Amino acid sequence: MSTPDDSPALFGLDNLPYGLFSTADSPGHRRVGVRYGDSVLDAGAAAAALGSAHAELLARPSLNPLMAEGRAVWRAVRAELRGWLADGSADPYLRPLSEASLHLPFEVADYVDFYASEHHATNLGRLFRPDGAALLPNWKHLPVGYHGRSGTVVASGTPVVRPQGQRKAPSESAPTFGPTRRLDIETELGFVVGAGRERDGSGVALGDFSEHVFGVTLLNDWSARDIQGWEGQPLGPHLAKSFLTSVSPWITPLEALDAARVAPPARDEALLPYLDDSAPGIEPGGLDLRITVRLNGHVIAEPPFSAMYWTGAQMLAHMTVNGASLRTGDLYGSGTVSGPDRLTQSGCLQELTWGGAEPVVLADGKRTFLEDGDEVTLSAWAPGPSGTRLALGAVTGRVTPSPS
Amino acid sequence: MSTPDDSPALFGLDNLPYGLFSTADSPGHRRVGVRYGDSVLDAGAAAAALGSAHAELLARPSLNPLMAEGRAVWRAVRAELRGWLADGSADPYLRPLSEASLHLPFEVADYVDFYASEHHATNLGRLFRPDGAALLPNWKHLPVGYHGRSGTVVASGTPVVRPQGQRKAPSESAPTFGPTRRLDIETELGFVVGAGRERDGSGVALGDFSEHVFGVTLLNDWSARDIQGWEGQPLGPHLAKSFLTSVSPWITPLEALDAARVAPPARDEALLPYLDDSAPGIEPGGLDLRITVRLNGHVIAEPPFSAMYWTGAQMLAHMTVNGASLRTGDLYGSGTVSGPDRLTQSGCLQELTWGGAEPVVLADGKRTFLEDGDEVTLSAWAPGPSGTRLALGAVTGRVTPSPS
Repeated sequence: MSTPDDSPALFGLDNLPYGLFSTADSPGHRRVGVRYGDSVLDAGAAAAALGSAHAELLARPSLNPLMAEGRAVWRAVRAELRGWLADGSADPYLRPLSEASLHLPFEVADYVDFYASEHHATNLGRLFRPDGAALLPNWKHLPVGYHGRSGTVVASGTPVVRPQGQRKAPSESAPTFGPTRRLDIETELGFVVGAGRERDGSGVALGDFSEHVFGVTLLNDWSARDIQGWEGQPLGPHLAKSFLTSVSPWITPLEALDAARVAPPARDEALLPYLDDSAPGIEPGGLDLRITVRLNGHVIAEPPFSAMYWTGAQMLAHMTVNGASLRTGDLYGSGTVSGPDRLTQSGCLQELTWGGAEPVVLADGKRTFLEDGDEVTLSAWAPGPSGTRLALGAVTGRVTPSPS
Repeated sequence: MSTPDDSPALFGLDNLPYGLFSTADSPGHRRVGVRYGDSVLDAGAAAAALGSAHAELLARPSLNPLMAEGRAVWRAVRAELRGWLADGSADPYLRPLSEASLHLPFEVADYVDFYASEHHATNLGRLFRPDGAALLPNWKHLPVGYHGRSGTVVASGTPVVRPQGQRKAPSESAPTFGPTRRLDIETELGFVVGAGRERDGSGVALGDFSEHVFGVTLLNDWSARDIQGWEGQPLGPHLAKSFLTSVSPWITPLEALDAARVAPPARDEALLPYLDDSAPGIEPGGLDLRITVRLNGHVIAEPPFSAMYWTGAQMLAHMTVNGASLRTGDLYGSGTVSGPDRLTQSGCLQELTWGGAEPVVLADGKRTFLEDGDEVTLSAWAPGPSGTRLALGAVTGRVTPSPS
């Protein structure tokens, strides 16, 4: 699958995302790969041949050891890779992307999912609490989030088996069991923690975000809305989410997004100091990522990540403010990315179709929620240095029927 | 610390829980241990010396490899251990318990926390929704649960640093930041998954519970009630729980609890087939565990696990009914264990003190919620074969102040 946001030109020297790949001649041999144009650099092989001090780190069948090293090593390795690719010395270790099988790029430790888009939270509030305030009282004081299931985070392309479970519409007197009737997507950005920390009495400071977060990935937090509506009180989502969460096969290094940093929206409430990113010396926490959501190839939304109220740094600060440890491989999602224009910038069908009342029109029919056979692809681009663009790795999944 | 429920006589041949220990002469060498009376059997050393086919499995610095093997191996290893201990051949490999440092007994994959006590859920409903129904409509149709943070599950004895965070009482106009003022316990049983499974379109059948669950542990899900009350809508608990969850150093094999199986309470609502444990051929899912909660040595509650509405088998069936995978090391907690007598059988201070309104009287003062320096210990016993008793490993933790 090739989309405009996924073209080789958007994977140049300023991008260089990391993944884990194998090839048909050695399917069990998972290797650290770096995407460059329409090729994958076998990073371990190149590092060994070119005498890198990081050869051992890059020869591991996982990205986690590199991720654990911390920012100084991330920068040094990235500089080496750029050098080898720029001067051609890496050429013998480039493999055509078409020959690579791509795997889940890291081992997930804990997975937390936030709810950081004001537009998304406002839309859901209006849908589900039409007589109340759209936003709950806590929303502008802290990034609301909850833990998800790390064991079902999977690589892009993994089939999305329609989950079964208990569903009860408000009009029904008792729950029934069966395949979800309201299978939805959630268009998110995932932040991948590289450098962990032990339990501590305090949280990660906003200014230490780049010391801990290795990179980002697009993330689709598949959701069963009818299961969610029935199970979710009082402790939040569980089975409605835990069947599958898909991430792109490429982790974009945070450093590659330096040119995409933007100021987040103005804050309406004064923030407690650990979340206050208006202080001098804090890097802008927003990211100018232009996301495209395609359903069966048809663009159904283009959510701007720059509209997110809470930043990745704030989410990290909040997630750890109680002293919680961080581990290499911790993943946290932004929550659904939705922009101000509900009909063209919402990151889930719940919003785009207003709870199923206003179908989305595709070339081949209409949709409220996903049907078996539907394929959803999230892609994104961001500004790079000097007016260039770079792409994030796309994440895709096709819905398959529940087993009978 | 020795308590009546933790005496050597309760750790006989019918018990034999597994743990992970090291000794002062070799502190970095973690070994699989089996508690027997007031000794720890070095299981790997015994198995190697006595020519066991499982010697390699027991020589690993983790219980997870044994846990992953499945029920046939669990039974075979347990039979071997009993034989060696009964005939004295294991004697050279017994170490005094007092010389052993005990560690987190397994590597936690995902952690899910349920809410399976009707008495607990009813009490909280009355406290927080005094004008509504005590139980929400879904409660008797499914075991409500949510994911917690597996990275902060720790071994018994780990200090409980008072967490900081955002708190806002209903009477306050804005949140403030600081140490929780309402630090609480949750007295729970943890179920430890041994044999995993891939993602599947359907759930684990009730009858397959014993094929997947390796054993149980006492679990204290420390909770900051003021943080929880402010953050928890609409997505459930997060920082209020994620700072620490303590488990006992011993995993009691499920097989040791055969004599403790009891029928669960009568069900008030017809259950969907995947949760219906009234069908013929299903083992009784309840467990007759008598739990004791001590605060600074003073017994503050004795919650009976047999009063739990939802069973461990039902929780497992529900947790996987959407097709979610299981991994070796997945841990799920029962939720607070509370019995029908609120003042003597509740598993958290929130209930015992009715939200802080009715202090618990200790020998050295009164408590609503935990103070710095307080120590909480959970212990439990269960009926064994032929009128004997066996103990679960106790779990303890002492509160230390937030850093200033």
